[in-house]
Amino acid sequence: MLLGSVEAGGTKFICAVGNEKYQIKEKVQILTTEPKETLKQCINFFKQYDDLQAIGVASFGPIETNLASEKYGFITTTPKKLWQNTNLVGMIQKSLSVPVSWTTDVNGSAYGEWLNLQEKSPRVSSLVYYTVGTGIGAGIVYDGNFVGSQGNPELGHIYVKKHPSDMNFTGVCPYHHDCLEGLASGPAIKARLGIAGENISKENKIWQIISYYLAQAAMVATLSFRPSKIIFGGGVSSQWLVDLISKEFSLLLNNYVEIGNLSDYIIVSHIPDNGSATLGNFALAKKKLIRII
Amino acid sequence: MLLGSVEAGGTKFICAVGNEKYQIKEKVQILTTEPKETLKQCINFFKQYDDLQAIGVASFGPIETNLASEKYGFITTTPKKLWQNTNLVGMIQKSLSVPVSWTTDVNGSAYGEWLNLQEKSPRVSSLVYYTVGTGIGAGIVYDGNFVGSQGNPELGHIYVKKHPSDMNFTGVCPYHHDCLEGLASGPAIKARLGIAGENISKENKIWQIISYYLAQAAMVATLSFRPSKIIFGGGVSSQWLVDLISKEFSLLLNNYVEIGNLSDYIIVSHIPDNGSATLGNFALAKKKLIRII
Repeated sequence: MLLGSVEAGGTKFICAVGNEKYQIKEKVQILTTEPKETLKQCINFFKQYDDLQAIGVASFGPIETNLASEKYGFITTTPKKLWQNTNLVGMIQKSLSVPVSWTTDVNGSAYGEWLNLQEKSPRVSSLVYYTVGTGIGAGIVYDGNFVGSQGNPELGHIYVKKHPSDMNFTGVCPYHHDCLEGLASGPAIKARLGIAGENISKENKIWQIISYYLAQAAMVATLSFRPSKIIFGGGVSSQWLVDLISKEFSLLLNNYVEIGNLSDYIIVSHIPDNGSATLGNFALAKKKLIRII
Repeated sequence: MLLGSVEAGGTKFICAVGNEKYQIKEKVQILTTEPKETLKQCINFFKQYDDLQAIGVASFGPIETNLASEKYGFITTTPKKLWQNTNLVGMIQKSLSVPVSWTTDVNGSAYGEWLNLQEKSPRVSSLVYYTVGTGIGAGIVYDGNFVGSQGNPELGHIYVKKHPSDMNFTGVCPYHHDCLEGLASGPAIKARLGIAGENISKENKIWQIISYYLAQAAMVATLSFRPSKIIFGGGVSSQWLVDLISKEFSLLLNNYVEIGNLSDYIIVSHIPDNGSATLGNFALAKKKLIRII
């Protein structure tokens, strides 16, 4: 059995084919230009594989995931104008005639992380996955299902307590200015110092500020879902930053609720090559197939 | 069939007996003194009813709700010293020999609200219930189940963005100082003006500050769970305060996600006589009974 994965990002589409054990056979990157062109390349890639049974798609958004909506499967009101109102699922399904699972990019990754943890520690019944990069997003998996009743979580846009050394920074979120994403995303880091996060030394005090905000994100995850684990992924996340976040989190939580061993509770993504979405998509494709059969 | 309800509060226990349609037959209040004395009165009340089939208990806490724990059914590390480490469920079960459901006080109320909404609008699949009074707590019901994997939500203790006119108030939470509860609970209101909230006029500007914080609580509920409804209950909540909260919420959210009609989305508890916990307990008792049968 072969499964497909499409990680539809704002700058590139990562397409992969793997077997039922989720081992990758082939993986390609396609530039995100305009829908017809990008999807044509995408579909041509999958057409090479006659045995393809199902495809999991995790996409940038906003996207419509409500099955009852006429717009199910669409990228909707994205700021990327060429992609507004694009029926991504419809186009893939029409060309490849296989079942397609459909979720947000961050949910795809969260599901990959969940699956990866299940193999190692089946006691993990829930997780909150934060991606910190161009934006901040969260995917929440609870007993194998995504959380979100009327839509997908958007935990990147909560408001946070300002760090005392950061009172004058007004934030970069076009909707909320100084929400979490406006204060702690990659562009927010760059807006303060004029250089990108990857070129700023670990010793720079900006990381105290960033970890203070991301620790509050971990607080919200803890106090709302009481999850088994919190995982940080995305371009900005790394082990040393997660160490800083954990230290701040510990001070902020002040032992108010039991979270077990902190270094097991807040972790950095361990799936190599940013592969969590591909893994998650394979598994969601398989799940879709099982439901249909 | 008769069902029992115990709403175990820090100052009083409200005990009630009702029928399978959740109509109350009798309701009494018992002062919370020390466990043996309070529970003796509680149990004597229920012993009058031979047909009692099950009891729902919703308690102040912290409480242990993990079925796998030896301390399941206990009030654990409460600041009320006489009640620390009290096996509430065990004592009730032993004396009355009926199944006992067990959850937090705020979950009991949240379940009552959920049930009440189900009767009116069965499309409601999830809700977040905030109680604002001596403390701030949240109960989250999702397709008829409580959210909380490793424990119960504690959304009263998230950190929030400070209101510009409130920068000098340091908050009253003994654990976190200026968390939500530390800034917007009944004692936090009193700490600023020296008088209790119920004696402060609606025109006082403190309500702008309080509603700014409670609007952030509604933001967190929205962006984490994407619930069908958010309900405010407890001593501080009222329709005019919910109107203020909704106004602030609308400004803060800035249409970032679809929430439908705002006045249907954020509402004040409509169950009369603070009866949401009693209703919820009856239903949880019945659910317990059905599971056992």
